Amino acid sequence: MKFICSRDRLAEAISTVQKAVSTRSTLPILDGILIEASVSDGVKLTGYDLETGIEFTLESDVTEPGSLVINSRLIGEIVRKLPEDQVSLESNAQLQLSIESGSSVFSIKGMSSESYPKIPVVADEQKITLSQTLLKDMIRQTIFAVSTDESRPTLNGCYFTCDGFSIEMVAIDGFRLALRKQLIGQDLPAMKFIIPGKALHEVGRILGGKEAEVVVYSSSNHILFDTGNVRIVSRLIQGEYMNYKAILPKTSNTTMLVSPSAMLNAIERASLIILSEDRRCPVQLSMPDDETLVIHASTELGTLHEEIPVNITGERIEIDFNPRYFIDALRAIDAEEISILLNGSNGPCVLRPTEGEDFSYLVLPLRR
Amino acid sequence: MKFICSRDRLAEAISTVQKAVSTRSTLPILDGILIEASVSDGVKLTGYDLETGIEFTLESDVTEPGSLVINSRLIGEIVRKLPEDQVSLESNAQLQLSIESGSSVFSIKGMSSESYPKIPVVADEQKITLSQTLLKDMIRQTIFAVSTDESRPTLNGCYFTCDGFSIEMVAIDGFRLALRKQLIGQDLPAMKFIIPGKALHEVGRILGGKEAEVVVYSSSNHILFDTGNVRIVSRLIQGEYMNYKAILPKTSNTTMLVSPSAMLNAIERASLIILSEDRRCPVQLSMPDDETLVIHASTELGTLHEEIPVNITGERIEIDFNPRYFIDALRAIDAEEISILLNGSNGPCVLRPTEGEDFSYLVLPLRR
Repeated sequence: MKFICSRDRLAEAISTVQKAVSTRSTLPILDGILIEASVSDGVKLTGYDLETGIEFTLESDVTEPGSLVINSRLIGEIVRKLPEDQVSLESNAQLQLSIESGSSVFSIKGMSSESYPKIPVVADEQKITLSQTLLKDMIRQTIFAVSTDESRPTLNGCYFTCDGFSIEMVAIDGFRLALRKQLIGQDLPAMKFIIPGKALHEVGRILGGKEAEVVVYSSSNHILFDTGNVRIVSRLIQGEYMNYKAILPKTSNTTMLVSPSAMLNAIERASLIILSEDRRCPVQLSMPDDETLVIHASTELGTLHEEIPVNITGERIEIDFNPRYFIDALRAIDAEEISILLNGSNGPCVLRPTEGEDFSYLVLPLRR
Repeated sequence: MKFICSRDRLAEAISTVQKAVSTRSTLPILDGILIEASVSDGVKLTGYDLETGIEFTLESDVTEPGSLVINSRLIGEIVRKLPEDQVSLESNAQLQLSIESGSSVFSIKGMSSESYPKIPVVADEQKITLSQTLLKDMIRQTIFAVSTDESRPTLNGCYFTCDGFSIEMVAIDGFRLALRKQLIGQDLPAMKFIIPGKALHEVGRILGGKEAEVVVYSSSNHILFDTGNVRIVSRLIQGEYMNYKAILPKTSNTTMLVSPSAMLNAIERASLIILSEDRRCPVQLSMPDDETLVIHASTELGTLHEEIPVNITGERIEIDFNPRYFIDALRAIDAEEISILLNGSNGPCVLRPTEGEDFSYLVLPLRR
């Protein structure tokens, strides 16, 4: 294998595929990055932890095809520190990789690519093309509610559905639900699958090109996100997702219009004196009149009392929450004003847009 | 105690004095910040870990004098998150501190200031006035060589001397020496003392105003750095400092002119394959001719070979170093070109300016 490429592009490729390299693997080969050079297709780097795989294709001048696996951390550190932008990589039959740039010559030991695991191939039959920024936002707005409780595996991912006209992402962790819906207005194929939270986290980190698109392909067991030069493959979580539509309340006894940023700031302040997620130390909401929301917290550290302007219709109630759940939902919301729908002191609370149905965040209160 | 001040100024004061608050104290009072309000002098905040004390004086509108000790972490987090820039603080006889800003009202429990330790008073007889940026640079350029070996306490600090016209700072850790000298050209008092590394680290973080000055006062046991609104007091280390002038070689067998940044980059690359400070894995320097320095490292991870242009007079030698020591010294040097003086493969190496004597970095080689 022998090729010449740009140091900065190679460093970008390495740091991208590194996100799928296991940090605590017991197999040395999985600590590596697979480098494959072909005269026709250029150079492809791959990181794969047997659950999520990331491939990055790099423009380069390949003079000798070949492949090699090389320790991910070491090659990453070396490439970042090279003196010139032009880098020449060459491997020999003894699996030594030489990395030359300017007057620096590194030589490091690689591993045979034969024992590197194959990333599953995802057929390109079913596909949806989306804006990268839209998908990135939808991930950010739901992923925090993905459960980490391994006893309910289907909740360890985001449920992604497409009904032909709109796409929806949902995450549930038993105490809260995050739902983000987007009308696409194309003739889309119907799809539904559960994407592991970890893979989605990496997809969210890689996406972002302002005008760029990402094509999502799926098979029964795998999903592929293709941005052109980067491809991310993940296994899907098998099983039936929870019937979340049955959880979302259809009616409410109280509706409150509020600025999400004002409420977020007040609850963040309350959380400063709530050390743990101890249910004995909730943030308490009360409504002395139809225009005031009182946010109160009291622990051994001290108390916070704060009032914010709101607009309440229906029953005025007192209700206790884990501040973390409210903070996560409020941070995910970009709107200037939202509706909060309440159903008594022990019923679920839903944060929604004042118009439309772009998002629903359900939070269960702490029982009084 | 009752006063009104600016949130941003108060947050700055807290984060400054926090640097002297112990993070692992067994006395709760030492986790606190002392707040003292006086109608004539404004508000003074103090952090003190019994070795280093920092005081910050804050403009504020004091309507009721008094004092209180309050948990440092908690007040810092609360003040940073307050909604408005105007903050009102008020304490009562039960040591409750109320913090009001906009519609937020916090109430937290304080401690009596009576049990807070007193920072030693440093008489203002002996003083030197220096530029803050100069002192900050001198600290940065020597502090890395302060020893952490507690069996030789005098080496746990920087040795600061003034001979009437110039000031000098020196640090030694047994394997290397860092010396920085600056001609001041005033009529300065003669002074010498050993300042603990930890205190000096905090002084370095606080200094920085471009045009600003700092006044250094000393007594036999303590030193005070006064920037106007911030005062840092530290105990001094007692004892005789090592006779470092006897260590610095007067002659050399080899003199090499080199760009410190080119040498730094090459040795940083070599250190990528030198995992530990294992003396079996040094960076090796050799001189195939009078114009080339070869930097070589070889470990189980791989090898690096690199050449940089230099200008050698005298004997050409091969010599081995711990890369860490060279990296620290080269990073501290701001010059475009330096002289490296060598005395055989096992003799001390000194990095100096090509002209003048602003700095000397001595590094001992690894014995071959």
